[in-house]
Amino acid sequence: MQRISLTHGEGGELTHRLIKDVFIESFGNLQHTQLDAAIIKLNASKLAVTTDCYVVKPLFFPGGDIGKLAITGTVNDLAVSGATPQAITAGFILEEGFPIRQLKLIVKSMAEEAKNAGVSIIAGDTKVVEKGSVDGLFINTTGIGFIKETHQLYPENISVGDMVIVSGTVGDHGIAIVSAREELGLMTDVQSDCASLNHLLQELLEQVDGIRVMRDPTRGGVSTALVELCEELHCTIEIEDRSIPIRQEVEGACDILGFDPLYLANEGKVLLIVDKNQIDCVLDILQNHELGKDAKVIGQITECQKEEGKVLLKTPIGSTRRLFRLSGLLLPRIC
Amino acid sequence: MQRISLTHGEGGELTHRLIKDVFIESFGNLQHTQLDAAIIKLNASKLAVTTDCYVVKPLFFPGGDIGKLAITGTVNDLAVSGATPQAITAGFILEEGFPIRQLKLIVKSMAEEAKNAGVSIIAGDTKVVEKGSVDGLFINTTGIGFIKETHQLYPENISVGDMVIVSGTVGDHGIAIVSAREELGLMTDVQSDCASLNHLLQELLEQVDGIRVMRDPTRGGVSTALVELCEELHCTIEIEDRSIPIRQEVEGACDILGFDPLYLANEGKVLLIVDKNQIDCVLDILQNHELGKDAKVIGQITECQKEEGKVLLKTPIGSTRRLFRLSGLLLPRIC
Repeated sequence: MQRISLTHGEGGELTHRLIKDVFIESFGNLQHTQLDAAIIKLNASKLAVTTDCYVVKPLFFPGGDIGKLAITGTVNDLAVSGATPQAITAGFILEEGFPIRQLKLIVKSMAEEAKNAGVSIIAGDTKVVEKGSVDGLFINTTGIGFIKETHQLYPENISVGDMVIVSGTVGDHGIAIVSAREELGLMTDVQSDCASLNHLLQELLEQVDGIRVMRDPTRGGVSTALVELCEELHCTIEIEDRSIPIRQEVEGACDILGFDPLYLANEGKVLLIVDKNQIDCVLDILQNHELGKDAKVIGQITECQKEEGKVLLKTPIGSTRRLFRLSGLLLPRIC
Repeated sequence: MQRISLTHGEGGELTHRLIKDVFIESFGNLQHTQLDAAIIKLNASKLAVTTDCYVVKPLFFPGGDIGKLAITGTVNDLAVSGATPQAITAGFILEEGFPIRQLKLIVKSMAEEAKNAGVSIIAGDTKVVEKGSVDGLFINTTGIGFIKETHQLYPENISVGDMVIVSGTVGDHGIAIVSAREELGLMTDVQSDCASLNHLLQELLEQVDGIRVMRDPTRGGVSTALVELCEELHCTIEIEDRSIPIRQEVEGACDILGFDPLYLANEGKVLLIVDKNQIDCVLDILQNHELGKDAKVIGQITECQKEEGKVLLKTPIGSTRRLFRLSGLLLPRIC
């Protein structure tokens, strides 16, 4: 089996061949591969930029792999900011001895997802470290998108009565990773939801005016994302526990493992705060799309205030409790 | 001693505090820290984008540290492409148990170098992996620069007689790292040359028209960078061994260790191919700048051809040998 050697990271002949055989093979001819920087042309004056490191374990899991995740995660960070993703850079840190066949699978999966999302992979970097200095392979992706003047979000228009929507079932990615890890003896058929949401969100922004803000509830889950939104926007959100869409298998797994699905990572879901007058239109667009078919209203804004906002959860028995950021250790290396 | 825990990477309360206490403390208020993407405004239609992972060992070395290197490396990749560096993203992969005091030093060093180079750090990401899954800390930086219409490079104008310049002594970074590693029992006073070259290169592009192309000879050294240039530009470069500026301590260390300084990494040097009629002007600007004071002409273009070009080295005894890309294993984790 061909494996990565330290020489593959030295910047010489073997690095050159690795780029040619693995990366150009899948990504196509990276623009000026040999150059120190890729040059892109833009027709916008406002750019969105995001960066993420991916350290998910295991590298391959039901519904995806680290390569697909690195693209969808970065595409989604741009898309929820209202940007049209345009270009992605990819940096790889490889462990000496890593099988080249696996690297090729991961790179292929990145290329496929980039094509699917309509973004170009424009620049890359590869480093190799000694066996034991990294766990297999880590990827960094940085994404650049442009913001169309007509695709604006209006967080400043947030007001009491605005509705909170989640685009589908919660916690799928988290449970798929736990079950792929096999550490906890959990066996489920749950697939990661990792998917690029940009086409769906673009359609929404084109057709609806009243979207205040969007956020993807990845690490830290729906609860942490909502808490951050409330702190930033100085509003109180009340969500209804029984409205939150959760797969039965995910709920079952959470019961067994003692996880709260509201803190599990999602990689293909979006939270939206929407003008209540636009809610039917937004749900209609979401539910007619494969990636939003389980979309539901899960709560609303009950107060706009001067101080930092908060998130309240109404439980099925009628009580209310406040949600906080994820506080303890739930599941490291989820993305 | 405060150390990084897995919980710091969970995206919850502790991640929030780490960002506030360590990153915002040094980088200043990252634009919309909580948002998924940073928004930047641009006045150019052409962008340069570059990405690099930094895995240098040790993290602190004479003349710099991984943080400074991550900024200078990315700034220089943009600058040699003719771009004005504007924004940088930073992704951190941290090992559980990593001392927070060291992280703060590294982040501070990034902030200082970014200020020095005049770029903003606009977005970041932090992941934490279990002890043993990464060697301390790795950083990815991705840089975005804009290309002024007046700051063009003209590789297509390359012609026989064009001169090759190196902006200073060769091999300093490589030897500084070897000696910091102490594995090979080498003790020297050589400092890494790592420095941001953008202000100097910008001045050159503003004042001189005849710069064909620039390249920074990092991993793989001067030889590999020249070989890549010749292959791309279809030209033959002849360089003079005795013209290459090398510090005495670097030459001595190379003799002891059997290294060829032309293959050692540099982190604050640039290779330029320049119209021979502009050579005095270019040397004058370089030599009047602290970072270019040892600049020298080291060779010239002797042939432009259809097939891939080559690099020839004229030795002091009058013989000529062809240079190739770095082929074996020289020094892993140099940057």
